[in-house]
Amino acid sequence: MATGETKAGAADEVEVRGHIVDSLLLPKILDRILQMGGTFEIHECKIGARRADPSYARIEIRGDTPEKVAEIIADLVEHGASPVHAQDARVEPADVASAFPVDFYSTTNQKTQVRVGGRWIDVEDQEMDCGILLDERAGRARCIPMVHVKLGDPIVVGHRGVRVTPEERPRESSPFGFMSSNVSSEKPKAVSLRSVAEGIRATRAAGKKVLLVGGPAIAHTGSAPHVARLIRDGWIQTLFAGNALATHDVEHSLYGTSLGVSIARGESIEHGHEHHLRAINAIRRIGGLRQAVEQGALTSGIMYEAVKQGVDMVLAGSIRDDGPLPDVVTDALVAQDRMREAIKGVGFALCIATALHSIATGNLLPAWVKVVCVDINPATVTKLADRGSFQTVGIVTDVEPFLRSLAAELAGRA
Amino acid sequence: MATGETKAGAADEVEVRGHIVDSLLLPKILDRILQMGGTFEIHECKIGARRADPSYARIEIRGDTPEKVAEIIADLVEHGASPVHAQDARVEPADVASAFPVDFYSTTNQKTQVRVGGRWIDVEDQEMDCGILLDERAGRARCIPMVHVKLGDPIVVGHRGVRVTPEERPRESSPFGFMSSNVSSEKPKAVSLRSVAEGIRATRAAGKKVLLVGGPAIAHTGSAPHVARLIRDGWIQTLFAGNALATHDVEHSLYGTSLGVSIARGESIEHGHEHHLRAINAIRRIGGLRQAVEQGALTSGIMYEAVKQGVDMVLAGSIRDDGPLPDVVTDALVAQDRMREAIKGVGFALCIATALHSIATGNLLPAWVKVVCVDINPATVTKLADRGSFQTVGIVTDVEPFLRSLAAELAGRA
Amino acid sequence: MATGETKAGAADEVEVRGHIVDSLLLPKILDRILQMGGTFEIHECKIGARRADPSYARIEIRGDTPEKVAEIIADLVEHGASPVHAQDARVEPADVASAFPVDFYSTTNQKTQVRVGGRWIDVEDQEMDCGILLDERAGRARCIPMVHVKLGDPIVVGHRGVRVTPEERPRESSPFGFMSSNVSSEKPKAVSLRSVAEGIRATRAAGKKVLLVGGPAIAHTGSAPHVARLIRDGWIQTLFAGNALATHDVEHSLYGTSLGVSIARGESIEHGHEHHLRAINAIRRIGGLRQAVEQGALTSGIMYEAVKQGVDMVLAGSIRDDGPLPDVVTDALVAQDRMREAIKGVGFALCIATALHSIATGNLLPAWVKVVCVDINPATVTKLADRGSFQTVGIVTDVEPFLRSLAAELAGRA
Amino acid sequence: MATGETKAGAADEVEVRGHIVDSLLLPKILDRILQMGGTFEIHECKIGARRADPSYARIEIRGDTPEKVAEIIADLVEHGASPVHAQDARVEPADVASAFPVDFYSTTNQKTQVRVGGRWIDVEDQEMDCGILLDERAGRARCIPMVHVKLGDPIVVGHRGVRVTPEERPRESSPFGFMSSNVSSEKPKAVSLRSVAEGIRATRAAGKKVLLVGGPAIAHTGSAPHVARLIRDGWIQTLFAGNALATHDVEHSLYGTSLGVSIARGESIEHGHEHHLRAINAIRRIGGLRQAVEQGALTSGIMYEAVKQGVDMVLAGSIRDDGPLPDVVTDALVAQDRMREAIKGVGFALCIATALHSIATGNLLPAWVKVVCVDINPATVTKLADRGSFQTVGIVTDVEPFLRSLAAELAGRA
Repeated sequence: MATGETKAGAADEVEVRGHIVDSLLLPKILDRILQMGGTFEIHECKIGARRADPSYARIEIRGDTPEKVAEIIADLVEHGASPVHAQDARVEPADVASAFPVDFYSTTNQKTQVRVGGRWIDVEDQEMDCGILLDERAGRARCIPMVHVKLGDPIVVGHRGVRVTPEERPRESSPFGFMSSNVSSEKPKAVSLRSVAEGIRATRAAGKKVLLVGGPAIAHTGSAPHVARLIRDGWIQTLFAGNALATHDVEHSLYGTSLGVSIARGESIEHGHEHHLRAINAIRRIGGLRQAVEQGALTSGIMYEAVKQGVDMVLAGSIRDDGPLPDVVTDALVAQDRMREAIKGVGFALCIATALHSIATGNLLPAWVKVVCVDINPATVTKLADRGSFQTVGIVTDVEPFLRSLAAELAGRA
Repeated sequence: MATGETKAGAADEVEVRGHIVDSLLLPKILDRILQMGGTFEIHECKIGARRADPSYARIEIRGDTPEKVAEIIADLVEHGASPVHAQDARVEPADVASAFPVDFYSTTNQKTQVRVGGRWIDVEDQEMDCGILLDERAGRARCIPMVHVKLGDPIVVGHRGVRVTPEERPRESSPFGFMSSNVSSEKPKAVSLRSVAEGIRATRAAGKKVLLVGGPAIAHTGSAPHVARLIRDGWIQTLFAGNALATHDVEHSLYGTSLGVSIARGESIEHGHEHHLRAINAIRRIGGLRQAVEQGALTSGIMYEAVKQGVDMVLAGSIRDDGPLPDVVTDALVAQDRMREAIKGVGFALCIATALHSIATGNLLPAWVKVVCVDINPATVTKLADRGSFQTVGIVTDVEPFLRSLAAELAGRA
Repeated sequence: MATGETKAGAADEVEVRGHIVDSLLLPKILDRILQMGGTFEIHECKIGARRADPSYARIEIRGDTPEKVAEIIADLVEHGASPVHAQDARVEPADVASAFPVDFYSTTNQKTQVRVGGRWIDVEDQEMDCGILLDERAGRARCIPMVHVKLGDPIVVGHRGVRVTPEERPRESSPFGFMSSNVSSEKPKAVSLRSVAEGIRATRAAGKKVLLVGGPAIAHTGSAPHVARLIRDGWIQTLFAGNALATHDVEHSLYGTSLGVSIARGESIEHGHEHHLRAINAIRRIGGLRQAVEQGALTSGIMYEAVKQGVDMVLAGSIRDDGPLPDVVTDALVAQDRMREAIKGVGFALCIATALHSIATGNLLPAWVKVVCVDINPATVTKLADRGSFQTVGIVTDVEPFLRSLAAELAGRA
Repeated sequence: MATGETKAGAADEVEVRGHIVDSLLLPKILDRILQMGGTFEIHECKIGARRADPSYARIEIRGDTPEKVAEIIADLVEHGASPVHAQDARVEPADVASAFPVDFYSTTNQKTQVRVGGRWIDVEDQEMDCGILLDERAGRARCIPMVHVKLGDPIVVGHRGVRVTPEERPRESSPFGFMSSNVSSEKPKAVSLRSVAEGIRATRAAGKKVLLVGGPAIAHTGSAPHVARLIRDGWIQTLFAGNALATHDVEHSLYGTSLGVSIARGESIEHGHEHHLRAINAIRRIGGLRQAVEQGALTSGIMYEAVKQGVDMVLAGSIRDDGPLPDVVTDALVAQDRMREAIKGVGFALCIATALHSIATGNLLPAWVKVVCVDINPATVTKLADRGSFQTVGIVTDVEPFLRSLAAELAGRA
């Protein structure tokens, strides 16, 4: 080990690069060292004099024992520091199927690399709360969910030979900078809307996909036509939802109601509470949403447009579902795998009025995909932010006018 | 007393008229009788066979003692029943200034009449939580707040000779019917908006005034231009607000910010947190909002348009105020009296994003003035409904898009 | 048909029994007749003179055509009226597997009967949003979910021969009466708590099971020990939850944290965000929760007590799950079927801090099972009430002190 | 001016001391320089190697013009930097009564000093959104609200000669550290409670006063006895509330209800909606709360205990008040001045279920007084945090169990 043994115990060095001052990286790292019972000395510290200039710091960490120092460095690595004296990653073969070895490295959603034969290689399929499957011979590594581990799979253990490059916090002058501060409904709303429209337009211009994640309130609030328009206009390539949104969208298309309430008049309709079940039954009798569109039984709405435009759609089941529609994937693990496939190439995720599907999507997305979460309930937005990180922007607003204006804004300058 | 003494105790009759079945009046009255320990017999019951047909019921109330029967009838009167054998109202002179006699009749916000010399006369200035000042010689009665009572004022005591005609619950087919059910953000939003626009248009067509009650979130969310437009287009005759809305509106006009946040860009501005104080100081130095408009120092925004259009404005002070602006009425009792004057002729009240001013206004308005309360926070809407009654319609939505669309909707067909 | 043909068109009679005035049944029925374009005449109306006395009304419905009258009566039946001239229910064989015939009768969660050979029989397994499978020869009927229908199954179609007996709205003097009014956090909290404790005690005294439905906030707020105590003390027989509650409970037991936050000190723990994944991995390596308890790896918490006490537990999967634990049922349809089994014998359901599992449970329970829903977010409680009915009581409060006090209250007089 | 003129324009130096890395002070300052269009060079940077060690940095700021550099330094001063080459503060006499000179220095709630004759003196009565009245001869300075300015008063203008020492962000290991992160209801609740109890105990031990700021939900939720107990046990020295809390507390004491709802049984009481008005009338007839206690008319509750214990109470009026009670200060400016007097010596403020009074109090308190805000509505807590700073800790919980447990916790070890 390259750690110098001194009277005070042990020592080793890490280095950090990037916007280490204004991204709060340096203070965070120094604080962690102290919190974990170490001390430090800053050996080198160059701070960029312009906002775009990168900075660099080399820090010596001291602790009572080499183990202590190694533990601190393992922690710092997750915050973006690199050991100056790096070692290769260690793997262990999975000793129990569908589980990790005890000491597995637990992934984040940040860009991660592992060191093999003295070379750093990128981890593919970056996803939080996974392990890393490392094929040392092929020199390839990828994130693997616990449930997919096969007996004998080589899984990275410990923090050695793993390094993380955290996403930089967006600059305050970026379109989303101002929104990332905290969750409040008392913010200029026109700006939020414009920022989302620009984000979607930039994503498409860059050849990336836009993912819409939506809950049933889209239908209840009368927003289905706005989403249908976004799809028709080509702004949405991927759609994650549940049985409820699909059902109430079909209900709206067939009966003009959502959960029995007339969208045009706002009143409860006679026998309207049966409409959603009759809508499901109608689609089940035909065999599915695609068949319903092809046979002319479904002629408008989100599902209709999604089928027509070839949107990659995952309808994930839940225990509160009636029916469900034949297109719904009722097994949660199968649904997750379909979502994992579908997020490839996604550059922007717009989550509307659903905690369940938004959190599920946030769990799968790497940190560099921008996520905007729109909900009228600040608690939902807080909950997402608690589980995600600063790349999730929350907008506390009413989804109907938001989606109406977004569709108009994007149509205006498409 | 006309109460027949029987073996079972005492008895007397009340009658109820109107939509007594579908307004739930009859069940409520029968239930009250039983709850209060009485029994009843329905002597006559004619129920209209069409929705518009009035109904009629005559009910005998029985209790252990004549006092018990009188107490029950006193209670029923508040729910809209009339004693068949009525008596004149009783008054007592106020024995303490600025207070009522112990047994004062406490008013509701419903249409109330008192009986003088065998004749029923209307109570003027109907307002809840007041007493009734009855000038028997002049044959006039009016609601009087506790604080305005002078020594010797004749105040109605007890329930005898007082009757109340509750507002009818709106039919489900009325534009507001569907909204009065409960508080939820998951409702068709375009319908709510249209109903409010129609209510405002109908109020103006009927020669009544529209009252806007607004909180500072109007400025923070960037909605001030929408409200300014509503005023400029002649839709608002009366405006109740506090120092905060006025200040942030002026701040927006002078600096482009609200509480230091740029409305155009959504970012915090350098030294922006001082803007609201500098805005207040600027107006104080000039002498007031009217002077600022006249001298060309204030050239846009809600306050500007309100001055220009001659809107009747009451800015009521509160303990959280900075400054305040010279136009603010800092004494709560003086402000209430100015609000009492200003609501005369108001037919529609639109309360936006303020619990304090909305509840204060609701306390003063008679039940027949339609009140619509718009807030993104369902708890605020619930709180208002808890204190008011079914004439208050709550809309849980974001105020910026709501006001933007309302101004556009009203402009489109004005 | 027994409908008398008259000049005015057609007519037929229904009767209603029970607390038809104070349960608002009569006004609702008269209103529906008028709304649907019919007229009525009340042929007989006996109203009970004491609160406990039942009432009776016989009402003639008139419409333009016999079809119109039949349609109105079909609607009234769902509200609890019975046709005076009844006919047998009609069935059709299912023509598509896992779907109903087009005109299927859609069930409610109220007590339902069908008429076979002139005799009314009870529908078993009462559940909303199902069809009715009617074995005419055996004289048995039961609710069947769409997905379980087999080709040729005899399914009730139309409303003929079906009648519903709605649960009576609880009297205001019942322990839960006061709470059913609306959703507000500003209510006397000690009373709510006592009512729930009494409800649980009464349910157990009647030999019925108590069902707890719980979300992960139970663990995050440090309430797991309170729930563990309720189970240990024998108050909970059935438990519905998801992977999240189970995982964070195990995390708390193994690491003292929930989602990485120390429950004892409230601080984030180093590497704490990995704890939940390591907890899942630990249980997966052992094979399941039962095995973990048996092998001494899990020695405290909700899951531990549930295994020890033999609580009937359904852990239903969702797409946001990490892992999941081996005990989680990942297919939503399988989970629903296990929940259907587990609710048999349940007399009281306490839903804590979960919208998903609470709504799923509410979908399965018949209307006569009391449901109490506790959440700090009024929107969750509103959402449940929107989908359920008045048997769901909402309490807006913080779950940790609620559960702490409930466990203490029940222990005190157990 | 000590600014060195260079080819690149102008330059000057500031220095920062304290926990400048882990308090995020250094990154914030460097970021501000860049944002405002300057550049910097770090001339000296000593970072403490232990958590308690202070750090020091000297930074040269460069800009295009001396004015630019001065503007940047003026901004940095508010964040806690000190100019290395300082100058005396500048004053101007007030040219308009009750207003500041145009260029007045606008105060924060942080410890502030002004430089007079080369010496830094502390500003007294520290309060945000005020001006600074500087008596140069006496060498004394104090915050003065706009409304109290007299013609000719010497008011500090510009940022020159003013410096600010921001409160240090609490260390993560402090009892309140963990709570300051963000607003969520999903946190370990027992820890929050214990921290508040410890904060109150420590405040009393230090000879400081505890201030309770309370809203009417205290009465509605049945928490009045808990607050009464806290007062009786000597934990509360100062009380800020409005007419509503006082009225409903008296109503509870006289009638057992709050807003007409029985606190013991949770039901609405006959004529209960009149109780609050009768309570106010009763106190008005007697002359005030003190008189009511002395004459034995008021024998329990918060107001009773506050009178008995000599609590310094400010009841501030608002436009939604009925009555009000004779003890209510109806003019907002008078109430603010009474609150300014009453906060002297307060070391801890506990704000319960009131946005209005909490924000008003937060406006008056210096940053070094710990403020804990308890509300079941996260939006209220967010609103306070938006207007305050990190010294305000928000707890999202239900006030009744919180106050019950707090009273018990404090009694247990008092």
